[in-house]
Amino acid sequence: MSGKKPREDVSIEFKEYHTPSSGIFFKASKQLYKQDSPYQKIEVIENEHFGRVLILDGLVQTTEKDEFFYHEMLVHPVFLSHPEPRSVLIIGGGDGGVLKEVLRYPVENVCLVEIDPQVIKVSQEYFPWLSPCLKDERTELIIADGTEFIGQTNKTFDIVCVDSSEPVGPSVSLHEEDFYQNMKRCFREDGIIAAQAGSPFYHLDSIRKKNGFLKSLFKIVNFYSSPVPTYPGGNWAFVFLSDKVHPLDIKGNPPEGLKYFNPDIHRAAFSLPNFFKDGLD
Amino acid sequence: MSGKKPREDVSIEFKEYHTPSSGIFFKASKQLYKQDSPYQKIEVIENEHFGRVLILDGLVQTTEKDEFFYHEMLVHPVFLSHPEPRSVLIIGGGDGGVLKEVLRYPVENVCLVEIDPQVIKVSQEYFPWLSPCLKDERTELIIADGTEFIGQTNKTFDIVCVDSSEPVGPSVSLHEEDFYQNMKRCFREDGIIAAQAGSPFYHLDSIRKKNGFLKSLFKIVNFYSSPVPTYPGGNWAFVFLSDKVHPLDIKGNPPEGLKYFNPDIHRAAFSLPNFFKDGLD
Repeated sequence: MSGKKPREDVSIEFKEYHTPSSGIFFKASKQLYKQDSPYQKIEVIENEHFGRVLILDGLVQTTEKDEFFYHEMLVHPVFLSHPEPRSVLIIGGGDGGVLKEVLRYPVENVCLVEIDPQVIKVSQEYFPWLSPCLKDERTELIIADGTEFIGQTNKTFDIVCVDSSEPVGPSVSLHEEDFYQNMKRCFREDGIIAAQAGSPFYHLDSIRKKNGFLKSLFKIVNFYSSPVPTYPGGNWAFVFLSDKVHPLDIKGNPPEGLKYFNPDIHRAAFSLPNFFKDGLD
Repeated sequence: MSGKKPREDVSIEFKEYHTPSSGIFFKASKQLYKQDSPYQKIEVIENEHFGRVLILDGLVQTTEKDEFFYHEMLVHPVFLSHPEPRSVLIIGGGDGGVLKEVLRYPVENVCLVEIDPQVIKVSQEYFPWLSPCLKDERTELIIADGTEFIGQTNKTFDIVCVDSSEPVGPSVSLHEEDFYQNMKRCFREDGIIAAQAGSPFYHLDSIRKKNGFLKSLFKIVNFYSSPVPTYPGGNWAFVFLSDKVHPLDIKGNPPEGLKYFNPDIHRAAFSLPNFFKDGLD
């Protein structure tokens, strides 16, 4: 769509450092996109095994091959727990993976609030699932800062999915107390929020800090986790927030065709290992 | 112990390819050991985050920082399920991580059968947990090929832990049907085997093949999984084998002081995601 010719550099290697002395690498058969937006550095590479890989500010956001782990686990646990979700808000998630999972349900409307229109444009070009989702009549795309949107909107939602990138660049405010405080404004009585929460293995200090302020804002705060092969440590934390709904009080059934999620996985994901439980307080 | 002086190469980078175009890397602040044994290439590097890293034939076996995920998950699920484990066999596991976990229980004897004495020697030098475990009077160290030991021994065991490396080099036979067929000889009526089984994300074809012959040999064949940050995909499969004991019929309590495992994690680990369940048949 942009008409840009892919660069045919077969010897490019992309590295993401998970610690100052270790990380993950991908050989790129093509560097499909590399440009700075006003918000962040956006790259798309083609890897033989993972397919297209979206990288923001040097951090892998999603790959064609393993996107389902993260996107299914941010979306389906909250949907399984909610009695009748109609109205959904996605903060971030410009690559459309979360939107794709939400639209599997008979919801009435989905607001996708993404700060960076260039992420939308790039993802439409390189990730096949986004364009059909944006064409779905239930989807409303809003280009805005998620924190500002939350502070100003009059809408209320049954489910909010916070698909932020890590707390660098434009996502910093999406990890702070004010954001979650404001979220309560547009959150229905039996509403549920799911947010990505980092790596239990690498980011336990920031998870502990987040747990501290979340417990003062929400009656029900439950962390859960899932494998995500291309994220640091290969395992990722999410947090389930509600004032009324308990995650293990299952209300519905998952849609057909999922690659990762099922009701047994739902229950299992909320079982935390000792170091994670001990690290929350 | 060997008196070898560590090499002070601070710029060494170790890479493990998980696919031909992607993998994990570690900067080594020191290359502590690098020698070929008659069986395999043995390396130990020092990494700032992970501490000492044992690498066999180019594949990370264990690190000081994250060893607990794998070692706890190979040992504690079978112990939680067995009514009274007294006699334990460990095949492979020369680094001692599995032995360390087994010795937390009041077992009567543990046979560690490792083919490569050089792995034992190197691990005694570089991994702090091994030497005390070898000094424990319940431990019997046998330097032998695991397959031959299984075919010849007159001993029987309550629990067998198969801590093989991947099916390259000396571990090839530990992944084959004959090995498991012979195992039944030295396996008590309510015995349980736990074996590492590879990455659900990367090695599903070999897991499927293994499941095929295991189901013809054992009445109860249950795969389970756990995060292991430094293994391919960050998530690892194990298999629980028995003719009598069901893994979710919990018989005991885990010991104090574990970093990963607890009874909730035990139940959760046996819940498989859709792609893994579908990939078994």
